[in-house]
Amino acid sequence: MNNLAPSDKALVPFVSVDNMMKLVHHIGVEPMLIGLADYIEADFKRWELFDKTPRVASHSEEGVIELMPTSDGEVYGFKYVNGHPKNMKEGLQTVTAFGLLANVGNGYPVLLSEMTVLTALRTAATSAMVAKHLAPKGATTMAMIGNGAQSEFQSLAMKAICGVDTVRLYDVDPAATEKAARNLEGWGMNVVACKTAEDSMEGAQIITTCTADKQYATILTDNMIGAGVHINAIGGDCPGKTELHKDILSRSDVFVEYPPQTRIEGEIQQMADDFPVTEMWEVINGTAKGRTSDRQITLFDSVGFAIEDFSALRFVRDRIKGTERFIELDLLADPDDPRDLFGMLQRAAS
Amino acid sequence: MNNLAPSDKALVPFVSVDNMMKLVHHIGVEPMLIGLADYIEADFKRWELFDKTPRVASHSEEGVIELMPTSDGEVYGFKYVNGHPKNMKEGLQTVTAFGLLANVGNGYPVLLSEMTVLTALRTAATSAMVAKHLAPKGATTMAMIGNGAQSEFQSLAMKAICGVDTVRLYDVDPAATEKAARNLEGWGMNVVACKTAEDSMEGAQIITTCTADKQYATILTDNMIGAGVHINAIGGDCPGKTELHKDILSRSDVFVEYPPQTRIEGEIQQMADDFPVTEMWEVINGTAKGRTSDRQITLFDSVGFAIEDFSALRFVRDRIKGTERFIELDLLADPDDPRDLFGMLQRAAS
Repeated sequence: MNNLAPSDKALVPFVSVDNMMKLVHHIGVEPMLIGLADYIEADFKRWELFDKTPRVASHSEEGVIELMPTSDGEVYGFKYVNGHPKNMKEGLQTVTAFGLLANVGNGYPVLLSEMTVLTALRTAATSAMVAKHLAPKGATTMAMIGNGAQSEFQSLAMKAICGVDTVRLYDVDPAATEKAARNLEGWGMNVVACKTAEDSMEGAQIITTCTADKQYATILTDNMIGAGVHINAIGGDCPGKTELHKDILSRSDVFVEYPPQTRIEGEIQQMADDFPVTEMWEVINGTAKGRTSDRQITLFDSVGFAIEDFSALRFVRDRIKGTERFIELDLLADPDDPRDLFGMLQRAAS
Repeated sequence: MNNLAPSDKALVPFVSVDNMMKLVHHIGVEPMLIGLADYIEADFKRWELFDKTPRVASHSEEGVIELMPTSDGEVYGFKYVNGHPKNMKEGLQTVTAFGLLANVGNGYPVLLSEMTVLTALRTAATSAMVAKHLAPKGATTMAMIGNGAQSEFQSLAMKAICGVDTVRLYDVDPAATEKAARNLEGWGMNVVACKTAEDSMEGAQIITTCTADKQYATILTDNMIGAGVHINAIGGDCPGKTELHKDILSRSDVFVEYPPQTRIEGEIQQMADDFPVTEMWEVINGTAKGRTSDRQITLFDSVGFAIEDFSALRFVRDRIKGTERFIELDLLADPDDPRDLFGMLQRAAS
């Protein structure tokens, strides 16, 4: 111990990728998905009090780097996230992310965390929390179209939160389906590998689309969709990237996170600016209707919103307490006398 | 070594406060100020190619949290910075900061660094780099009004970069002056503690104001300022916070970093929206005139701009190479197969 050691005030808990994975296993994958869904639902309930700044995007030819800030008036959070489609070819992640929480009252950061793993979990938890409100009662089967990095998380969240027991996998690349099926072994679900998208939808009450196709794709066409299903559309999440034929949107009741963002990034970018949508937080609060009939097609046009990241970071902040799943970073200068930063610097020389 | 260890791609160099202070001493305070000024000047020279996003501010009753992003097309950077005037009473810093650089081409972060110490250095380096262009030739004496955390850095930067050999200190609080005088002992400057602002300006060719007064203050009145000086106005840096009487602005040629920001945050918030200013990058490029006569009063209305932070982070990135002044943070998930995030998570359980 010496008086040059950083004070507690200067230290910010940091959760690395390694510690995040250990935290997930410490809590359990399914309990963590349930816990995240609870935090996200709680924040959707108090949606109105959040500062909903649009993302701050820096575009380049190769991709985009975004900052997604929000605040509930007591806690401030932001996520750094990039999207670079060509990264995969070079053995890099298309998307990486990290996030931060800070105390609004004094501006001091209180958590820095990896968010690549955490975003995968919060995206799945959000989908399942929404499906709990919108999917037909007693839904037990999900079609999972697109078997990339998000597919196993989606499957397990739907199991843990909605009681889905069967997942029907389909991907244009059979190797992806094989990978997802292998990863889902031993998790207590019936896993069916399917050869076509149509096949995967057989008997499914929930249809999740999560493909990485760029450009306007048509993963689902209108004639593939019967009455009464819930569509969880994850993959269409940036301008020029959609998965559903617009006729499906016309037949569905569309639910969104934050309309100004979804109209730019979601499936509804294909529709007119006044295409009717329902904000999901109003359904959860009871101020708007969710599913009203067995025949209705509900569609969650999900693009991912800053508040979900905020909820996920809150969950991590609360759950690392008393664990060894973080280290303390000496991120903030904390001189004894705030006016004497130079004195602190000088003393560090000796 | 095991195959669960994070790959190099997942690791981001992190410079803590402790390591930043050690880096400063490893390089030397004055050489570091000179190096930072060189990087800042180089970036002012290519000012036009930068993405100049306005700051993204989240305001609360207690203060503000800001993200300041910018990009030169190859490297992206942002700074997180808070401002909470009441913090001092609670023994906390009014301002804390950290920053990040990332590769625009693939979105991967390449540096995370404390920026409380670094911002103090870059602010002083910017002031001195600008004074090198605008101050009267042969300036050797600076009045330093406001002897808080920035004052020693300003003094040493003016010495290292402009050849100032005498600093005349003044603060409303004599304890602050005493602290600054003590800290500047042994740095090879003549240090004169003064009892009034007027006294501090005697014989000074450069006048630096850096007070923490909130609200519209009048640290300098018109009759205090003679012909031919350079005023380096640092303290007026947010709406409602200024230091100079507007009559001084009317008599001076005013130089700024980025007019849209300075008109809101700088001394010129007191003036009409079309009050004439010169952009500093144009002076440095030779496309606008700096000082044109011995009698002219030049005034740098400095508020701090994202590009200066970017330059400072670039300097740190370049200078930590081959040193032990950083640690590697496991901030990014990097599965062998980008589609197999869940498999990576599962393998971490064992």
